[in-house]
Amino acid sequence: MSHIKTTIDGHVLEIRIDRPEKLNALSPQMYDDICLALGALDRSDDLRVGLIHAEGKHFSAGIELDKWAPIFAAGKGFPIPEGGIDMFGLKGPRCRKPVVIAVQGYAYTWAVEILLTTDVRVAAEDTQFAMLEVKRGIYPCGGATLRLPQQMGWSNAQQYLLTGEAWSAAEAHRTGLVQKVVPPGEQYPAARAIADRIAAAAPLGVGAILKSSRLAHTDGEAVAARHLFDDMTRVMGSEDAQEGVRSFMERRAAVFKGR
Amino acid sequence: MSHIKTTIDGHVLEIRIDRPEKLNALSPQMYDDICLALGALDRSDDLRVGLIHAEGKHFSAGIELDKWAPIFAAGKGFPIPEGGIDMFGLKGPRCRKPVVIAVQGYAYTWAVEILLTTDVRVAAEDTQFAMLEVKRGIYPCGGATLRLPQQMGWSNAQQYLLTGEAWSAAEAHRTGLVQKVVPPGEQYPAARAIADRIAAAAPLGVGAILKSSRLAHTDGEAVAARHLFDDMTRVMGSEDAQEGVRSFMERRAAVFKGR
Amino acid sequence: MSHIKTTIDGHVLEIRIDRPEKLNALSPQMYDDICLALGALDRSDDLRVGLIHAEGKHFSAGIELDKWAPIFAAGKGFPIPEGGIDMFGLKGPRCRKPVVIAVQGYAYTWAVEILLTTDVRVAAEDTQFAMLEVKRGIYPCGGATLRLPQQMGWSNAQQYLLTGEAWSAAEAHRTGLVQKVVPPGEQYPAARAIADRIAAAAPLGVGAILKSSRLAHTDGEAVAARHLFDDMTRVMGSEDAQEGVRSFMERRAAVFKGR
Repeated sequence: MSHIKTTIDGHVLEIRIDRPEKLNALSPQMYDDICLALGALDRSDDLRVGLIHAEGKHFSAGIELDKWAPIFAAGKGFPIPEGGIDMFGLKGPRCRKPVVIAVQGYAYTWAVEILLTTDVRVAAEDTQFAMLEVKRGIYPCGGATLRLPQQMGWSNAQQYLLTGEAWSAAEAHRTGLVQKVVPPGEQYPAARAIADRIAAAAPLGVGAILKSSRLAHTDGEAVAARHLFDDMTRVMGSEDAQEGVRSFMERRAAVFKGR
Repeated sequence: MSHIKTTIDGHVLEIRIDRPEKLNALSPQMYDDICLALGALDRSDDLRVGLIHAEGKHFSAGIELDKWAPIFAAGKGFPIPEGGIDMFGLKGPRCRKPVVIAVQGYAYTWAVEILLTTDVRVAAEDTQFAMLEVKRGIYPCGGATLRLPQQMGWSNAQQYLLTGEAWSAAEAHRTGLVQKVVPPGEQYPAARAIADRIAAAAPLGVGAILKSSRLAHTDGEAVAARHLFDDMTRVMGSEDAQEGVRSFMERRAAVFKGR
Repeated sequence: MSHIKTTIDGHVLEIRIDRPEKLNALSPQMYDDICLALGALDRSDDLRVGLIHAEGKHFSAGIELDKWAPIFAAGKGFPIPEGGIDMFGLKGPRCRKPVVIAVQGYAYTWAVEILLTTDVRVAAEDTQFAMLEVKRGIYPCGGATLRLPQQMGWSNAQQYLLTGEAWSAAEAHRTGLVQKVVPPGEQYPAARAIADRIAAAAPLGVGAILKSSRLAHTDGEAVAARHLFDDMTRVMGSEDAQEGVRSFMERRAAVFKGR
């Protein structure tokens, strides 16, 4: 039985880490299952947003190191399962739908690294983030060396990467890593509420935003500027654009169909 | 009569959005007029800094969508008028002089996008920022998808871009989008005071800073590092550099001429 | 006698600016000496981290302009002494060991610029940061135009670069420039404590983190992602990786050797 449970609820794909008896330690099988869930989210015509959360008091205390050691030692990175999308966003295409995450308690190593690939983030007040690798004689290889300095600021990130020390939910909020800090236990409903608001937004617009923002991030502002209007003719001619105008006139919330 | 009023006062070019009866809705004509004002600022030997502000309770509730719809649908972006500089900084050269902005009340869609191109920013406490596009079935095409993630942090920006929800002046300050938050009505004098301080600084130095900072932003640190001294011989030999030393010795404020 | 004092204490190389009678004004000779100290730190098998701090009430009031003027006017940048590493990180290779810095009182011009090259930073509450160049008729050429916008946010940085005005330790902390603000006099021990924690971390891991984070910064995420596992086989096979696992099992702090 897999420790990754997926549930479809409306337009949201929930991805639940469910191995609390081992503090949600990540196994290679769980990595595969999360990658496959992201692949399914990406391909679905109906799903609009992913929501990653974890069962139990802690999001995760880390990886199951003995099972990962041979993969690390081989020095080739993480193999992505057929039909899956790399959950660390290091190889291959990214999921074209946004992903929201809720974390609590320990959010160690890979927990920080998957969080860094998500688009909106909620943390419980008791969250402790840490990149512990330098205390174990190794180094992070799931993207934190790339993204933590970019998202938290160079010296904020190096302070934690180079010492292995933990930081709080408040510090994560202060430095821009998470958007909302809530009492423990409220992280899941708070993240779900955000996922619902994204799911209610125009899907063609949401997809175009992610695409443009990522292009600016990977290829720079000038390249992204040249592609800003690529999707505009199609989106302006969509049913949803008409519904947008109509709902505005009628002073009601729009109901979008993604076409 | 144009809804964009320009005034020269000392070395400052004030650009005022003046259509409060329509909540300062941006028409294509107003876009052209702002572009032309930036072009004039760029070319002038005497003007040193621009100041964008808006008449009325709100900076702007958005664009005049019916007039823009055909331009959007054509999928070619915004045509820049002859002699103008793209006010969204997406095409063609940027204005070589710094621009300060003051916002208040509604600062929706294009208001956020022009703010993201400016160099120093003041917001009234009552400012509500929002990128509403995904609530209308479309997506932002004035640069917010490129610059909001870069300036506010990835997940801070996506939270607002992907939901269409508003954020406050306090949140804009916390996340680095604006430098100063003041009581409503004080945003214009506060921004003007900053513009005056920039106008009092050495113009050759100000120009060299903007050029170097932008080169680092577009081409990376290494390229900008190689060009750091390009203007130095000329600047070190300028009258203003001598005035800088002299005023320091005489313990008085320097008076710079830009040569 | 040089105004730069270096001391080796454990695995830490302390680099002390020691010219308080001149408010630690930076001479070309002091620049050379700091570059040479960074070169020695880089080459040493035993040294793991550098710590830059300054004697007296102020970190530094600036540079000794009359001695630097001919170098600036030549327009070629700062010559790096044989065996040294550019302390402004503008030319040639960077030091492969992390550097921590402690600042207090005036931290003007070059003080900001060397701080921007360091990895973790402590400021005394009384620190006043400023880039004064535009008040003197010149512009910054030690990297602030490149790095201040990147590390503090575009408009936060331009506010100070374009006016020459000072900012506080609290503002530096709020905007991500420094990690810790302490009462005056405690900046050195606080920074030393951080340096000690980095020195206690696994040196191969620390080196791999800095290398990967810098590659992401200079060449982008995609390039850095492809090189994430370059050092992994070697690190996983190191004595320190074994010590990491053993110390974890034995519930004690690891003692790393850097091999």
